[in-house]
Amino acid sequence: MSASGNLMDFLDEPFPDVGTYEDFHTIDWLREKSRDTDRHRKITSKSKESIWEFIKSLLDAWSGWVVMLLIGLLAGTLAGVIDLAVDWMTDLKEGVCLSAFWYSHEQCCWTSNETTFEDRDKCPLWQKWSELLLSQSEGASAYILNYLMYILWALLFAFLAVSLVRVFAPYACGSGIPEIKTILSGFIIRGYLGKWTLLIKTVTLVLVVSSGLSLGKEGPLVHVACCCGNFFSSLFSKYSKNEGKRREVLSAAAAAGVSVAFGAPIGGVLFSLEEVSYYFPLKTLWRSFFAALVAAFTLRSINPFGNSRLVLFYVEYHTPWYMAELFPFILLGVFGGLWGTVFTRCNIAWCRRRKTTRLGKYPVLEVIVVTAITAIIAYPNPYTRQSTSELISELFNDCGALESSQLCDYINDPNMTRPVDDIPDRPAGVGVYTAMWQLALALIFKIVITIFTFGMKIPSGLFIPSMAVGAMAGRMVGIGVEQLAYHHHDWIIFRNWCRPGADCVTPGLYAMVGAAACLGGVTRMTVSLVVIMFELTGGLEYIVPLMAAAVTSKWVADAFGKEGIYEAHIHLNGYPFLDVKDEFTHRTLATDVMRPRRGEPPLSVLTQDSMTVEDVETLIKETDYNGFPVVVSRDSERLIGFAQRRELILAIKNARQRQEGIVSNSIMYFTEEPPELPANSPHPLKLRRILNLSPFTVTDHTPMETVVDIFRKLGLRQCLVTRSGRLLGIITKKDVLRHMAQMANQDPESIMFN
Amino acid sequence: MSASGNLMDFLDEPFPDVGTYEDFHTIDWLREKSRDTDRHRKITSKSKESIWEFIKSLLDAWSGWVVMLLIGLLAGTLAGVIDLAVDWMTDLKEGVCLSAFWYSHEQCCWTSNETTFEDRDKCPLWQKWSELLLSQSEGASAYILNYLMYILWALLFAFLAVSLVRVFAPYACGSGIPEIKTILSGFIIRGYLGKWTLLIKTVTLVLVVSSGLSLGKEGPLVHVACCCGNFFSSLFSKYSKNEGKRREVLSAAAAAGVSVAFGAPIGGVLFSLEEVSYYFPLKTLWRSFFAALVAAFTLRSINPFGNSRLVLFYVEYHTPWYMAELFPFILLGVFGGLWGTVFTRCNIAWCRRRKTTRLGKYPVLEVIVVTAITAIIAYPNPYTRQSTSELISELFNDCGALESSQLCDYINDPNMTRPVDDIPDRPAGVGVYTAMWQLALALIFKIVITIFTFGMKIPSGLFIPSMAVGAMAGRMVGIGVEQLAYHHHDWIIFRNWCRPGADCVTPGLYAMVGAAACLGGVTRMTVSLVVIMFELTGGLEYIVPLMAAAVTSKWVADAFGKEGIYEAHIHLNGYPFLDVKDEFTHRTLATDVMRPRRGEPPLSVLTQDSMTVEDVETLIKETDYNGFPVVVSRDSERLIGFAQRRELILAIKNARQRQEGIVSNSIMYFTEEPPELPANSPHPLKLRRILNLSPFTVTDHTPMETVVDIFRKLGLRQCLVTRSGRLLGIITKKDVLRHMAQMANQDPESIMFN
Repeated sequence: MSASGNLMDFLDEPFPDVGTYEDFHTIDWLREKSRDTDRHRKITSKSKESIWEFIKSLLDAWSGWVVMLLIGLLAGTLAGVIDLAVDWMTDLKEGVCLSAFWYSHEQCCWTSNETTFEDRDKCPLWQKWSELLLSQSEGASAYILNYLMYILWALLFAFLAVSLVRVFAPYACGSGIPEIKTILSGFIIRGYLGKWTLLIKTVTLVLVVSSGLSLGKEGPLVHVACCCGNFFSSLFSKYSKNEGKRREVLSAAAAAGVSVAFGAPIGGVLFSLEEVSYYFPLKTLWRSFFAALVAAFTLRSINPFGNSRLVLFYVEYHTPWYMAELFPFILLGVFGGLWGTVFTRCNIAWCRRRKTTRLGKYPVLEVIVVTAITAIIAYPNPYTRQSTSELISELFNDCGALESSQLCDYINDPNMTRPVDDIPDRPAGVGVYTAMWQLALALIFKIVITIFTFGMKIPSGLFIPSMAVGAMAGRMVGIGVEQLAYHHHDWIIFRNWCRPGADCVTPGLYAMVGAAACLGGVTRMTVSLVVIMFELTGGLEYIVPLMAAAVTSKWVADAFGKEGIYEAHIHLNGYPFLDVKDEFTHRTLATDVMRPRRGEPPLSVLTQDSMTVEDVETLIKETDYNGFPVVVSRDSERLIGFAQRRELILAIKNARQRQEGIVSNSIMYFTEEPPELPANSPHPLKLRRILNLSPFTVTDHTPMETVVDIFRKLGLRQCLVTRSGRLLGIITKKDVLRHMAQMANQDPESIMFN
Repeated sequence: MSASGNLMDFLDEPFPDVGTYEDFHTIDWLREKSRDTDRHRKITSKSKESIWEFIKSLLDAWSGWVVMLLIGLLAGTLAGVIDLAVDWMTDLKEGVCLSAFWYSHEQCCWTSNETTFEDRDKCPLWQKWSELLLSQSEGASAYILNYLMYILWALLFAFLAVSLVRVFAPYACGSGIPEIKTILSGFIIRGYLGKWTLLIKTVTLVLVVSSGLSLGKEGPLVHVACCCGNFFSSLFSKYSKNEGKRREVLSAAAAAGVSVAFGAPIGGVLFSLEEVSYYFPLKTLWRSFFAALVAAFTLRSINPFGNSRLVLFYVEYHTPWYMAELFPFILLGVFGGLWGTVFTRCNIAWCRRRKTTRLGKYPVLEVIVVTAITAIIAYPNPYTRQSTSELISELFNDCGALESSQLCDYINDPNMTRPVDDIPDRPAGVGVYTAMWQLALALIFKIVITIFTFGMKIPSGLFIPSMAVGAMAGRMVGIGVEQLAYHHHDWIIFRNWCRPGADCVTPGLYAMVGAAACLGGVTRMTVSLVVIMFELTGGLEYIVPLMAAAVTSKWVADAFGKEGIYEAHIHLNGYPFLDVKDEFTHRTLATDVMRPRRGEPPLSVLTQDSMTVEDVETLIKETDYNGFPVVVSRDSERLIGFAQRRELILAIKNARQRQEGIVSNSIMYFTEEPPELPANSPHPLKLRRILNLSPFTVTDHTPMETVVDIFRKLGLRQCLVTRSGRLLGIITKKDVLRHMAQMANQDPESIMFN
């Protein structure tokens, strides 16, 4: 009979906690998989017994798809609700709608009859705070009142958010992606994906985004979607009782989260595959895709942007790009890589300071101060006052004939009449020059404030701020190149492709390339980034510029350090995350890593038939190992199996309570047959059921690169080390991570959990 | 010192063949990986020595990208050349261009000045064979001459193709995807991706596609791209000397192949990930994407379709789809699943017959007969006479105002004037009814002839024929629904969305959905299929119909048998392919699978220090195992390592030639120190260098599902079975595959190779 088969029989007995894991511990993927196969086998064999069982087996087979459907629906709905609420609350900082206070500025004016197309932003029903309270919309006092109201609302939102997080769900803070990566790699953090986290994160996300802080909703939306995934998987025993299967659902939920964040279902799936997931079988790929699509279509039917577009920033460019433009695109890539490096280093330094100094004790005050600074500096500059996604949208846009933005204030040639979507390059007007200055100031402000914002005790994503930094830099470069090409079209680099009267440079495209570069520099995403951008533009035309920038940005950033922001935060928090992307290339052997090391006391082992219950209880009390190898005898040290600490404790407790004759000096045996004992000895305790008869072993000469590979690919918790069949030691996942940290000249003590 | 380190030192000695594999053998992924890490370590440590070494290390790091660039360029160029040549040769069956015989019909008429837009298909320079030879273009004799010329050309092309394949490159036949899947999973088939195969497959692919046989160029293009990948990887020692690394390049090449086949780079990468590849690290994902993009852009700059479109079938629909249409879409999915099942079963039955009966001895005759039958039946029907990709293109198309196709022969309402791209549903004209009959006949013909065509000794893909079958069925269903909706728009199912005068049903969309369903039924692709289709239409709008059809088709087909056509061909040929998708759910243990089985003679082992050279040579001669476990002694059976047969032979041969004092009764030892020998005994032979000190072991109680998982994820060749440290037996990949076949009630002897 198989080891796992034995385990299952045992699990059928009323032992509530067997097969589960303790908080902040690592799961054993092989064991989870084997448990799932057992469950599946049982259902299959039962299904032949009766029609009812057959229907139950069908339901079980379909439950995966049902969970995906539910996740897609809920994630899409939540994303839609968040979008609508953010829209309203962001406008609330500015004014209020007289006809119905729950209308946003745009909704207010759309429902008003008096609106003409030109004045679609101005309508009598929408009143700024100064108009409502002072009855004046211009002048210094009106400006000051609006300024004050803006700051007050921002402070109120931020205070509410940080208080809610502190009181109800401390796990709701941050972007959540580092923790989700760790959880998906097989780590237990109870409550991190709980219902409270879901509720509070959704509410506070709306609050913080509305407060105007320099953060985005994309990362937190992935966390929200994973909470949905966790919630729905708890409804089906197939997923709730198996930590491995549950993680398959969570991978798909992450895809759904990105799908609704950007309206990019394929990009979402690839993001989950490339960035977040650890174990991603093909079945999950297909289901993730389904969840991502359902989520995207749910969001579209809610239609929060009012334009039936699925995507967050829909853009349409009218001109192709030219080879010579690759040079500025690559420069933007370099900028993105530098920004990624600077941001990651500064942000980690600041977060470390927060963790280690008194700063960390005043999270509410910190949020209030940062919000106040943000609001005070942001208000006077139109590019920081508006919401960051609107800013990005404006920067991405091509200047059409109807565009009223300051960025499109070009000097038109009065003699030229042309179709609206093919406007030639024109000299920049005053508005463009003003915009350049304001953008430069906004860029510096964004760079600085984002470093301090990301990591505070509120939900905060950094996709949007990163993209904003890149888009501002990109747009400025784009306008620069455009004006250069206009004024110097006889230069050799422009002569071939940019004649006078041609529309050759699209500054919006530069903004998009810059955004991709900065996002890539921070997160080190590659394929998924390009695919997300491809889904935004909907054409393969601009994939080459995007790829050039993304590749450059990744190379530049990697040259300064391999870690993206998520990996850096994982390391900062000491999570036991074994990255698939890190190559382990050192020449160490299993014998160098295993415990006990030279000079340490010998490995704590159990013998198969000579230890008493009391011996084992003492061993359990004196050590904190998660399990003990079982050997034939202390002399021969030949390994026969591995027993989990948790199951040993439960089995002994259970036996003492229920089995007669089990006393402290009962012999415990792991063999099939009880050992031969003297006549008057107490009843022995059989524990073969909890013995894992197929523990994973490697020899002491195995290169560590192979051991690391095995830990990664098979998702092991521990591995025993033998030489010529004798047990020598044990390597746990923590040992592997510590060794890797040591080899990379980092502090091995930074790895904290088991 | 590590085992692999030892191995490397040994490899530096002039032993030409060490570290390579024999033909038709399985590679050891762990070993390849460890060899690559060693190589990398060596280069890194050398790079600090001098600037030259540093530059060399940079070049080495960049060689991956260079290989990808070269593959993309060559694959794109070859695809372009193939497209152009096929275009010309297909038209050659019809007639010839007087101005230049190497012009295709379209090129001929485009260069002619006399062409007007309406008559763009007719121009005096293009002469049908009857016009050229009989000076008449109408009438019975002209028809018969053209018919004969069509058959003659087809026979000539097919004969040339099959002869070239037989004489120069027998591996050039078939689609190649089953073999590429097997190769990527870690199997050696020498010459399968060789230069001759590349050349002959490219040439014969043009010939067979032009001959009008019912086959496509998509599968073979993947093979061609993989040949390019193999060629370029042989130029860089990083890839040529490491079978594992080489397979990373081949995975990317497969993506490039699909990318040029459909003009769908993202779909290509996902195809490689989902369908073809085995070991697909994230680094490969990114590089595959690069290769796929380069290939697609190279193809676009060659512009073989003359429309600067990247995609094979560009379509643009003007109307959305409605919920009620999901029903016919799902029906098409069912049809696709049934077609997949019927095709796979019939084709496999026919191919088995070819393998086992005398039929297989006359491949040339077979091709000639099938070509003759195809040409004779195909010519009278316009839908089979035209090339299959033109047919699909026509079926996918929406009927615009300028469409002259018979399929668009609707009765127009003379009172209605409307913009050209929003034509309401109209009653079908005579042309449509004729087309329906012809399509039905063409459908039956395609279904039958494709079964016999796929698997002949010529290059043959089945993407295009499958899509054609689905597109024909889909278009017919679409026209049916359209006419139903037009004539019965008061029916309850149509009332809500299809008012008179509305454009509600797009038959072209049905054709596309049908094509996706049939392709999915045959290949069991899911995500990549939907993404390829998404790239063809360029909009998320139609993803739901496509997904509904693809999912239905997969479920229906899976209900009749889990194997897609590629897996079925892999099984037919007995390749040792361990599918990642198969779930192994049986309750067997390692002890049930390992050899020796009960009653068999004991395992052939080497002892660490007591066997003579002669003993070992006898053992090698008498057995054909690929390696031997090394134990402490026959009594203790404690395992110390594993020695490869190939390396043992080489080491003994080398020692006998070069080392003094090595004779037949020299003791061979694998320990660090030589054993204590009597004074007059001959010089012992130290073989520790070839000993793998970290062989993979599992216990006899390990469930087979875990063993299968380990074999899959770590890519093992063999695994040793122990109990309490004693060696019991060995499990090879072949044993695992045989056991899986046995469990699935198949003949275990069908697994043929090692």
